[in-house]
Amino acid sequence: KNHSLNGYRKSCWYEEEIEENLRWCFALNSILHTGASQFQDIALLDTKPFGKALVIDGKLQSAETDEFIYHESLVHPALLYHPNPKTLFIMGGGEGSTAREILRHRTVEKVSMCDIDEEVVDFCRSYLVVNREAFCDPRLELIINDARAELESRKECFDVIIGDLADPIEGGPCYKLYTKSFYEYTVKPRLTRNGIFVTQAGPAGIFSHTEVFSCIYNTLKQVFKYVVPYSAHIPSFADTWGWVMASDVPFCLSAEEFDLRMKQRIKGENRYLDGKTFASASTLSKAVRTSLENETQVYTEGAARFIYGHGRQNQD
Amino acid sequence: KNHSLNGYRKSCWYEEEIEENLRWCFALNSILHTGASQFQDIALLDTKPFGKALVIDGKLQSAETDEFIYHESLVHPALLYHPNPKTLFIMGGGEGSTAREILRHRTVEKVSMCDIDEEVVDFCRSYLVVNREAFCDPRLELIINDARAELESRKECFDVIIGDLADPIEGGPCYKLYTKSFYEYTVKPRLTRNGIFVTQAGPAGIFSHTEVFSCIYNTLKQVFKYVVPYSAHIPSFADTWGWVMASDVPFCLSAEEFDLRMKQRIKGENRYLDGKTFASASTLSKAVRTSLENETQVYTEGAARFIYGHGRQNQD
Amino acid sequence: KNHSLNGYRKSCWYEEEIEENLRWCFALNSILHTGASQFQDIALLDTKPFGKALVIDGKLQSAETDEFIYHESLVHPALLYHPNPKTLFIMGGGEGSTAREILRHRTVEKVSMCDIDEEVVDFCRSYLVVNREAFCDPRLELIINDARAELESRKECFDVIIGDLADPIEGGPCYKLYTKSFYEYTVKPRLTRNGIFVTQAGPAGIFSHTEVFSCIYNTLKQVFKYVVPYSAHIPSFADTWGWVMASDVPFCLSAEEFDLRMKQRIKGENRYLDGKTFASASTLSKAVRTSLENETQVYTEGAARFIYGHGRQNQD
Amino acid sequence: KNHSLNGYRKSCWYEEEIEENLRWCFALNSILHTGASQFQDIALLDTKPFGKALVIDGKLQSAETDEFIYHESLVHPALLYHPNPKTLFIMGGGEGSTAREILRHRTVEKVSMCDIDEEVVDFCRSYLVVNREAFCDPRLELIINDARAELESRKECFDVIIGDLADPIEGGPCYKLYTKSFYEYTVKPRLTRNGIFVTQAGPAGIFSHTEVFSCIYNTLKQVFKYVVPYSAHIPSFADTWGWVMASDVPFCLSAEEFDLRMKQRIKGENRYLDGKTFASASTLSKAVRTSLENETQVYTEGAARFIYGHGRQNQD
Repeated sequence: KNHSLNGYRKSCWYEEEIEENLRWCFALNSILHTGASQFQDIALLDTKPFGKALVIDGKLQSAETDEFIYHESLVHPALLYHPNPKTLFIMGGGEGSTAREILRHRTVEKVSMCDIDEEVVDFCRSYLVVNREAFCDPRLELIINDARAELESRKECFDVIIGDLADPIEGGPCYKLYTKSFYEYTVKPRLTRNGIFVTQAGPAGIFSHTEVFSCIYNTLKQVFKYVVPYSAHIPSFADTWGWVMASDVPFCLSAEEFDLRMKQRIKGENRYLDGKTFASASTLSKAVRTSLENETQVYTEGAARFIYGHGRQNQD
Repeated sequence: KNHSLNGYRKSCWYEEEIEENLRWCFALNSILHTGASQFQDIALLDTKPFGKALVIDGKLQSAETDEFIYHESLVHPALLYHPNPKTLFIMGGGEGSTAREILRHRTVEKVSMCDIDEEVVDFCRSYLVVNREAFCDPRLELIINDARAELESRKECFDVIIGDLADPIEGGPCYKLYTKSFYEYTVKPRLTRNGIFVTQAGPAGIFSHTEVFSCIYNTLKQVFKYVVPYSAHIPSFADTWGWVMASDVPFCLSAEEFDLRMKQRIKGENRYLDGKTFASASTLSKAVRTSLENETQVYTEGAARFIYGHGRQNQD
Repeated sequence: KNHSLNGYRKSCWYEEEIEENLRWCFALNSILHTGASQFQDIALLDTKPFGKALVIDGKLQSAETDEFIYHESLVHPALLYHPNPKTLFIMGGGEGSTAREILRHRTVEKVSMCDIDEEVVDFCRSYLVVNREAFCDPRLELIINDARAELESRKECFDVIIGDLADPIEGGPCYKLYTKSFYEYTVKPRLTRNGIFVTQAGPAGIFSHTEVFSCIYNTLKQVFKYVVPYSAHIPSFADTWGWVMASDVPFCLSAEEFDLRMKQRIKGENRYLDGKTFASASTLSKAVRTSLENETQVYTEGAARFIYGHGRQNQD
Repeated sequence: KNHSLNGYRKSCWYEEEIEENLRWCFALNSILHTGASQFQDIALLDTKPFGKALVIDGKLQSAETDEFIYHESLVHPALLYHPNPKTLFIMGGGEGSTAREILRHRTVEKVSMCDIDEEVVDFCRSYLVVNREAFCDPRLELIINDARAELESRKECFDVIIGDLADPIEGGPCYKLYTKSFYEYTVKPRLTRNGIFVTQAGPAGIFSHTEVFSCIYNTLKQVFKYVVPYSAHIPSFADTWGWVMASDVPFCLSAEEFDLRMKQRIKGENRYLDGKTFASASTLSKAVRTSLENETQVYTEGAARFIYGHGRQNQD
């Protein structure tokens, strides 16, 4: 009977084309929920190798068994390097896991999470049991809006701003939220004096880091004095992932101090990240390190530049 | 938006290894229900190319869009060749579709359907909407038992006995229900004088017919005077399928008489089968016809033969 | 060791999307040859389930183990119904198998095979061992040209014209070779008095026949007095395939006469086709037969009509 | 035309079941060579995402585009930590890439490479162009033998012994070459006084490290005073991979000293590894580090233990 159960379970597969010539396939237990918003399609799958998996527009967003690597890496370094993070702003993050990790910090007083897609947020709030407590935390303010419009409409500043958005594909929905002008004129003005910005930065594998990671790093280098790229292998993504942390104050923390702050400030135990892990994650391999230092491309917003030029032309 | 919907929908696939080196894959909308009995695993999938699909132990049993080809072919020829079929016995058939087609015949007074797996029957009764009416028909008697034990325990005879069982794989669950001795000593004695036996007979493609179709045909030829093999291509099976009909009275019906009886006896319209279709289906291609005539293997039950030998030895 | 061989061999697969939501996959032994012409990509694969397979632009064209079904069905009925076929014209057919089957007929004196793609012809001549003899037959005249241009440039008539072309997809390379005007003004004038035209006619399965089969049938009905559609299941295509034969003289041949002519005229034995097989193949199932009779669409050549209209306008 | 080329190229796939429920698939350009030895099946594939790929028994061994990560990691740390490595012994390594990396070290005088499978060695020597020079280097001694038998037959000692073998699957071909008794009684006696042993140690991902990595680490800890586990993400393996280095002298080298020795001793430039990279690679994440420290299993050779017991019983 066991045999036949396995037989059956292997009949249904989730398949993702990671690149045009590369496929990654998970055996399925079931398709738990499906939905669609005005922007995207959403599905919650129960996969055999990685548990419940959130899939948006046919792309895996996060999987139950290893999303902790992504979310601990995105959230804790920036919050631990900051001397006393109280106010946070999340661009995107509708899944709720980024907020969940932030809310584990005892210093945090207010988290503003701004996602453009209400249906995704509702879907995750309904089905992702692990984030239910976070969605109910009174410190969480949920805003449905474009992150740029929201940040531009705000008067207050934040201790940490976190980018938890889709990759900057040209013409894609989030491209404008990775440009030099956005960082310079929208994000930086909304950071407090010791403020830290951190963003997910796409695949960071030995080949894949040139897609967007190196360019996000180089773009942030144009705007902030101190920029730290780091990465971690996420099994369900079949790749190493990257993040970039940026500030105008230097990042100074030994592995021991990192661990001490973790202990003092964070409720519960991290599963993935500690001081040594971050030391390793922020020491890139020769190949990736060299490639990042040699990157020359900067994300700019063609349209914005055109408008300025147009403005100048009008002045003539 | 449409684009992304398609993108998502193609992420999940049902995959069946038809042979070790041949795969057949359907894009999935959802996995509707899954269950397990003491004998087998059951699933109802919603597939994009073939609608709802019943899968048992990782093998497609029938698909919404084309199961009518299988079930019309299994049921109607035998019932139409019979002068006045009133009492029927189905070996297997737990899905309910065979009963559904039988119950469309106005002559039918009693259908005894005998399936060994109560959970499969309950699963199909619950989820296969198209067979709900059949499951409620007062002419249907549902028995949970081994078909051989049941037939052997019966005193009455049936006008038509229908085999709707898994293929005769040696060591498989149904092998014994395809043997010469079973046909001779169990089935034939339970047929009325004009009685007809018909059975599904596995794949009947130009290569695949040697797996079991030719041997079932040859085995029935040892027991009945008149034996008619026929076949039809079933798209969701990615193959041509076979059935064999057998009796001790000759099968004499022109296509026109076939159509006339269809009209007189069957409620509603067939979608696939009529007189001409059956004429075509029962005229096999040169390759398959020759191969069937040259088949020499007969399914026998090793154990039974051993007992006879043993008996004779005892007489010495 | 055997085990590991199988293990290895199942690592490489040929995969074809038969429809957007339906995949058909063969385990590969090797990729024998690949090439590209100005029109298309060509590959010869060694597959485990179906032997050597010719693939053009990612679509299976024919497979070693069952191409005889397609080519016997395409060639022999038309040539057998014709009283004495001497001169033949093949539109397409670069693979060489259609010529091979024609050249088995003792009556044949000249076969003109006109394919547009020289590289495909060269590729097949080099690698398809089974057709080598045919390519060397002195009765074969090979022309590299557009079949329409070639037919229009010819003065002589042919006893049988055979269409062995890609399906009539709108905007596709062969659409114009399936239109009413092409049949009426180009094909028919090049047929002798008893001449027969036959064409492959795409998938003819219970669902797939509406793609092009029914419409090719209906288009030919507008041009010829007698039109015979027929079909056969081809395992490697995962579908039933269709052909349509058309003439202005009736098709009258009993299965016995068919078999007799086969014996008299064809060298060697057919594997698939004989009189009974053709009787069955040309008796379509109720579903397909009804659908063909109800078809109203006729393939017309938009561009051609526009040109005529334009011409008349110019005359005004 | 480009479009169709892509269309074609995506028709053929290499597929590996990384685990029972996880598949990893590469589009294929071609199957370059296949072969079989008395032990295993061998294939060289040309894949689109990772170039030429060596596959043994259906498992990817190394891929052209990223094998440098594996082989630089396996070879250089041990050779750089050693004060002056002259004599080397490779267990396995028939592919030739491990020898190639070793032979880049100017200090090296003799490399004994001992692989059990002559056909694999011949296959790689013939087809892996990148290792041709190494196979011809006069410092390379190639032995076809079981690595244990060979080591036990040797009298001399080696500065570095390198294990480049298949994973220790119980009952698998290499299990005995990962046991405590093998390390203690066969490997260690054949190391010079400052000698270093290093072995590939299987997958080292956040979940997969418990398969064999943690146990190889713990087994080596029972035999050597100083043991260093380290890991790196290898894209074509869809996982992070592990190695363990062991010695009775401590491993003391700063990243700068590591880089300096690299420069002095190694011909050409490393692509992946330098001092910082190794510092990162040998600092495991919290999850893996904790799990390694808590590992209690030791690989032992059941048979050997039984013989000892049997001996003692005989003494009674």
